[in-house]
Amino acid sequence: MSYKNFPMVPRVIFGRGSFNQLNEIIAPKRLNVNAPFVFLVDDVFKGNAWLTSRIPLSYDDRVIYISAKEEPKTGQVDSLVEDIILTSRQGTSGIIGIGGGTILDLAKAVAIMLTNEGEAKDYQGWDLVKNPAIYHVGIPTISGTGAEVSRTTVLTGPEMKLGINSDFTPFDQVVLDPELTKDVPTHQWFYTGMDCFIHCVESLNGTYLNAFSQSHGEKAFDLCKEIFLNNDLSVSESQDKLMMASWHGGMSIAYSQVGVAHAMSYGLSYLLGTKHGIGNCIVFDHLEEFYPEDVKLFKQMKKKHNIQLPKGICANLDDSQFDTMINISLSLEPLWENAIGKNWKKLITRDKLKSLYQKM
Amino acid sequence: MSYKNFPMVPRVIFGRGSFNQLNEIIAPKRLNVNAPFVFLVDDVFKGNAWLTSRIPLSYDDRVIYISAKEEPKTGQVDSLVEDIILTSRQGTSGIIGIGGGTILDLAKAVAIMLTNEGEAKDYQGWDLVKNPAIYHVGIPTISGTGAEVSRTTVLTGPEMKLGINSDFTPFDQVVLDPELTKDVPTHQWFYTGMDCFIHCVESLNGTYLNAFSQSHGEKAFDLCKEIFLNNDLSVSESQDKLMMASWHGGMSIAYSQVGVAHAMSYGLSYLLGTKHGIGNCIVFDHLEEFYPEDVKLFKQMKKKHNIQLPKGICANLDDSQFDTMINISLSLEPLWENAIGKNWKKLITRDKLKSLYQKM
Repeated sequence: MSYKNFPMVPRVIFGRGSFNQLNEIIAPKRLNVNAPFVFLVDDVFKGNAWLTSRIPLSYDDRVIYISAKEEPKTGQVDSLVEDIILTSRQGTSGIIGIGGGTILDLAKAVAIMLTNEGEAKDYQGWDLVKNPAIYHVGIPTISGTGAEVSRTTVLTGPEMKLGINSDFTPFDQVVLDPELTKDVPTHQWFYTGMDCFIHCVESLNGTYLNAFSQSHGEKAFDLCKEIFLNNDLSVSESQDKLMMASWHGGMSIAYSQVGVAHAMSYGLSYLLGTKHGIGNCIVFDHLEEFYPEDVKLFKQMKKKHNIQLPKGICANLDDSQFDTMINISLSLEPLWENAIGKNWKKLITRDKLKSLYQKM
Repeated sequence: MSYKNFPMVPRVIFGRGSFNQLNEIIAPKRLNVNAPFVFLVDDVFKGNAWLTSRIPLSYDDRVIYISAKEEPKTGQVDSLVEDIILTSRQGTSGIIGIGGGTILDLAKAVAIMLTNEGEAKDYQGWDLVKNPAIYHVGIPTISGTGAEVSRTTVLTGPEMKLGINSDFTPFDQVVLDPELTKDVPTHQWFYTGMDCFIHCVESLNGTYLNAFSQSHGEKAFDLCKEIFLNNDLSVSESQDKLMMASWHGGMSIAYSQVGVAHAMSYGLSYLLGTKHGIGNCIVFDHLEEFYPEDVKLFKQMKKKHNIQLPKGICANLDDSQFDTMINISLSLEPLWENAIGKNWKKLITRDKLKSLYQKM
C-alpha cells in the first residue's frame, strides 16, 4: 500500500484585515524590478476601491480582471500565459489570485503553465506536470471551494472537465481574510458554501476515507451545520467559520476524493457550462439514494435560506448530449471508486446516470 | 494589527505503514553520497527490529539513539551538532527524528544549529534564528505533543526552559504512521495524550483565539473526548485518531498560544526535571479556577484509565526553589497574556503561583 505524500500550503495567514499585509508577504519574493507580480482579480472588484486600493502594485506589476461568470477553461489559461510572457520578458515574480474558486484555479494553472511547455489541456489528469510552478498566492474572496488548499486546478478543456492534479499545483502562500467575503451575494454564498458541505459528505462517505480526511471532514461538516442551520452566529463569526470550513473541507478531500455529486456535476459543467457550486447543488438535491441523511440536511439548508434551484435543465437535451455528460462523468474513475467502491461499474451504468440526469 | 504568517509543514504522509515509504521520501533529498542522513531515534527502539530494520540506511547514514527519560537540553543539542559536524565533513543531508516530543524537538533544534553559529541557548526565544535549518523530518511514535507541526522546539537551557520559536523550526516533512505508537505504555500514552487535551483547553480558553485556532482546537478536543472517555473505538482507530488529535491540537496552539498549565509546568521541568506530559497533568489537576469544566473532564479521564499522579512533589522545596520556578513561569509572558489577558499581572502574583505550586 502506498500513501500519498501530500503537499500542504507552506504559508498561511489568517485574520480579518490580513489582506493589508500582502505587500510585506510578497515583497521578499520579487525576483527583480523587471519581473512583475501579476494579480488575477475577480472583475466584481473592478472599481471597488475598498479592495483594489490595497493591492500592492510596484514597478511593472499588473492587475488583470477576470470574469468568474464562466468556469475556467484551458484556452483561457493559455491566453493568459501568452499575454504574461509577452509583457514580462524578464520573467514573472509571481501570480496572485484574488477571487473565488474560478480565479484561484486560474491562478494555479497560469503559475504552472509559465514553467511548463505546451498547452494547459496537456496537463489535465494526475501528476503530468514536470516543472515547479512559479510562486503563486491564493486569496479567497468566497468561501467553500477549498481551492485554496487543494492540489488540483479544475479546468474545462476541449475534451474534458478535469483538474491539473500535481504536487506543484498548491499555492505557496494563502491569505485567509474573512472580511473579503463580506459582499458575496446570498445565492453565491449558499452555492459555494454547499460545495464545502458536499466535499465533506463525499469524503466522509467515501471508501478512501482515513483518519486524516475524517477529522478535517467532520470539522468542516460541523461548521457548515453551524453556519447554515443555526441562528446564533454573528455575521463576522459566520464569515470566519465558513472560511475555515472551506479550508478543512479542502484538506479532507485533498487526502481522499470527492464522489457522486462532483462526478455528475462535471458533466453538467462541460455540456451546459453550469457553474461548479450551483451544479453540485442541482445534482446533490437528487442523490438521496447515495447520501440519504445528508441530502435531507441539504434540503433543510436550502429551505432555511430560500434558495430556489433551477429545474428541468436537462429537459430538452437529446441523446447525444446525455451521452456527452455521461462520458465525462464516467471518465472520473477515482471519484466513482471513492464513492461506491472498487466494483462501482456494476452499479453506475449509463442508464443509471441518464435517469438521474433526467430528473435535473 | 499584524497577523502571523504561519509556516505549515509542507509535506505530510498519513497512514498505517507509511513509515515503509521513508526511503522514497528522503532519497531525493540526499545532497551527495558523503553527506549522510542522521536518524535521531528514541532509545526505546534499540534492538527493536520491527522498527529499526525499516530505517533506510545508505552510505554513511547514522542512527543515534537518544534517551527520552529527560527533557531535551540546549547542551545536548550542542553536543549532537558537534558530533555530527565532526563525522560529516561534507555536510549532512538531513536530520530525521523518530520518537516522541523530546526526540522531535531535538531533531528540530539540531537541524537549526547545523546552519546557525553559536550555541542553542542563544536562540531560545522568538524569531532569533537567522539561517534556514537543514532538511528535517519528524516521525512521531507517541501522539499528543503537537511537536510534529509546531514552530517551536522547547529546550531546557542553563537559564530557562524556553522554545526556539522560528519560521525555520517546523519540519520539512512529517510521516504520520499511527502503527508506530502501538507499544507506548499506558501511563505515557495518557500523559502525552493529555498534553494534547491541555493544548486545546488552553487555546480554546485563551484571549488569542481566532477561528483558525478554534476550528483545530475544537476538533482535537472532540477527538480527545472520544479517545479517552468513550469505549467504542478499536485500538487502531484510537491510535489513528490520537495522532490526528495531536496534529490539530498542535495547529491550534501554533496559531495562538498555550496557557496556565504550560506556564507553570515549565517551572516544574526546569527545577525538578519533571517531564513535560506528566508535569502538565500534575499542574492541570489543580487549575479548577482557570478551567473548571475541563479540569472536571480531565479528572474523569484520569479515573477511567486508573492514572495515579505523583503527589507532594513540591512538599520539601525551600523558598529559593519556589522562587526559581516562579521566575521561570512568570517569564513566559505570552502564555499568561493568552490565558488571562493583557492585565494578567494583577491576578498572577508570586504569592498566587507559590500557593498553587504548594498544592502539587
